[in-house]
Amino acid sequence: MSFERLLASRTSRMGASAIREILKVVSAPGMISLAGGIPAPESFPLDSMEELTSRVIKSHGSSAFQYDLTEGYPPLREALAALFSRRGIRATSRDIYVTSGSQGVLDGLGKILISPGDIVAVEAPTYLGALQAFNPYEPQYVQIATDDDGVVPESLEEVLNRYPVKFVYLVPTFQNPTGRTIPLERRKRIAEIAISHNCLIVEDDPYGELRYRGEQVPTIYSLAPDNVVYSSTLSKVFAPGLRIGFYLAPAPIDRWLVLSKQGVDLHTSTFNQALAAEYLTGGYLERQVPKIVALYRPRQEAMLAAMQEYFPPTMSWSRPDGGMFIWAEGPERLDTQKLYDQAVARNVAFVPGRYFFAEPEKGLSTMRLNFTMNGEEDIRKAVRTLGGVLADALRS
Amino acid sequence: MSFERLLASRTSRMGASAIREILKVVSAPGMISLAGGIPAPESFPLDSMEELTSRVIKSHGSSAFQYDLTEGYPPLREALAALFSRRGIRATSRDIYVTSGSQGVLDGLGKILISPGDIVAVEAPTYLGALQAFNPYEPQYVQIATDDDGVVPESLEEVLNRYPVKFVYLVPTFQNPTGRTIPLERRKRIAEIAISHNCLIVEDDPYGELRYRGEQVPTIYSLAPDNVVYSSTLSKVFAPGLRIGFYLAPAPIDRWLVLSKQGVDLHTSTFNQALAAEYLTGGYLERQVPKIVALYRPRQEAMLAAMQEYFPPTMSWSRPDGGMFIWAEGPERLDTQKLYDQAVARNVAFVPGRYFFAEPEKGLSTMRLNFTMNGEEDIRKAVRTLGGVLADALRS
Repeated sequence: MSFERLLASRTSRMGASAIREILKVVSAPGMISLAGGIPAPESFPLDSMEELTSRVIKSHGSSAFQYDLTEGYPPLREALAALFSRRGIRATSRDIYVTSGSQGVLDGLGKILISPGDIVAVEAPTYLGALQAFNPYEPQYVQIATDDDGVVPESLEEVLNRYPVKFVYLVPTFQNPTGRTIPLERRKRIAEIAISHNCLIVEDDPYGELRYRGEQVPTIYSLAPDNVVYSSTLSKVFAPGLRIGFYLAPAPIDRWLVLSKQGVDLHTSTFNQALAAEYLTGGYLERQVPKIVALYRPRQEAMLAAMQEYFPPTMSWSRPDGGMFIWAEGPERLDTQKLYDQAVARNVAFVPGRYFFAEPEKGLSTMRLNFTMNGEEDIRKAVRTLGGVLADALRS
Repeated sequence: MSFERLLASRTSRMGASAIREILKVVSAPGMISLAGGIPAPESFPLDSMEELTSRVIKSHGSSAFQYDLTEGYPPLREALAALFSRRGIRATSRDIYVTSGSQGVLDGLGKILISPGDIVAVEAPTYLGALQAFNPYEPQYVQIATDDDGVVPESLEEVLNRYPVKFVYLVPTFQNPTGRTIPLERRKRIAEIAISHNCLIVEDDPYGELRYRGEQVPTIYSLAPDNVVYSSTLSKVFAPGLRIGFYLAPAPIDRWLVLSKQGVDLHTSTFNQALAAEYLTGGYLERQVPKIVALYRPRQEAMLAAMQEYFPPTMSWSRPDGGMFIWAEGPERLDTQKLYDQAVARNVAFVPGRYFFAEPEKGLSTMRLNFTMNGEEDIRKAVRTLGGVLADALRS
């Protein structure tokens, strides 16, 4: 028998992630994939996991395996307060909430804020996982224009003047997919606009610790704490498989997010929260981040150098100070979706940029390249191949 | 500034769990709480956790800490197929999906099936966590009558004839809150009704392995696999803090549940899934369940014996063959909400039964008693106190 007839109206808005479909294709042997968006497995502190487990069992005992508060495991919330202080954010443990990955707070925000037809403003391009979290709650999207410095404040202001926006979703630092970071002066302007428009901003910051050069830029949260939900994760600096995200949010948003999460998963894995608490308080994070940076920086440099050498002169691209991605753009006639098939036929994969736009038929000439998952030699080889495919496409 | 104005209409349906509020009160020193619904910490295989972690690191390496498929970690899905076979359910690993606790599949079902105003049928009384999962999707509930053998088939049939029910939610074995189990003959009748009415049943089975006497009863799923979502968890036989649930569902429900989960948390903790896989394949579960049963059975027997000795003769109660709860009911004039304050004043807590009914003002004379969290001596003492409070209330 068929149960299609039982589906809720919102379900038609749920689609399989195009990127996930792409990732399935690219696991073929011999393929060099620049399509992934995931950390290198060699970035995980695998050697420390048994030690961390012993510490948890010794210090936390059975409470690390019991049901716990929806808000988060108290020892982890304490440890996160110290981490926030290093990021220039003053927060007590009671202000910090734990979620099952950053995805958890995005789902929660969609659930508590979006009625069908409500307007959510996002960057063009934006993080695909956020759209997937929001889509089931049936929003409409409006796009905010971006340039090499990320969100253009004038565009943000225009959008807020024109539409009744429920919230603005931003990844201000080493954005996925562009790698771009909004500079301080622009952040100040964005904070002012948020305050003057009584606007809620969701600041998603998964990559901030992956800085390869330059100075840390203050969060938008620190500039307008009453207007910003600040969300981050340990996925890029500990291990994504543990699904540990965390956030700060203005009242009453924080209280409703907890109620929402109670219905979704009761709470995030207590054991993994305890491991994360030990990882932070035991100084593991501070020792691991420099190792991760030392792993990724030469990969990024290799990619940028190879692009300089092999990409046709009509291509332009971002030169991020950190993160996991480089964003490339060709002349308007370039169709990176067509390019994709040609590249895969030559054993190189990437993600066509169109998937990162909330509006269809945008970014057709753009592409996202990941540099964390391959060694320098493979990156150089893949970029050379891609440069050839691009040259062919732009010649024809 | 206030963001109340931003809340979605569905958010008004989210309330704090009354039980969670009760649980906060009862952590006072000296209190014996029969209110909890959680496993005893001494039931966790704490001694095996370091060994399991070593096995995971040795056998699974970094893949146990990486992003993974939304459907579930393949080695766990394999291991669960074997577990299902022991429960009389034939399923391949590809049919089995992993969620973040049972709560995860309940949220997913709400999300993909319930449009505002849709009707969900539940037992009277039912599991509160299910209502919390479904509420944000704005269903209406209809109640199915129950007796000592659980759901009354005639009532189910009447409900299905009268209302366009999206799905029926049942906990057929050692139900929370009543402890009742639906006998085989009645399950067959329920399966027939589901098939003849083209009705989808959600069979939630968290307690099935906690059997203290009697024979295992086949699942409703095994009697009507095309009509049933079967959901279970390792929370009661491994550790709830790991948040490992799993389910089988008819197509296309299974596919939509995966898409829904992708937006909610991408996937359940890979590490915890790997620990669960080792727990199952290494024979740990088979060794642990008898220990858990040996821990809980005398506690349940102590509670039943003490109720027999100390409860007033006008009280009646369930005598379950397993699970975690006993359900008691007094004459109609008894108000267990009032009783609650008097009991807490005498250092004993329980949950007034009214909270387990989807309709208000039902079950006012009922109460749920948990026997897993206290030793026999404390249980006896608490029941004696409660018997005194009951006698006072029923005299006045």
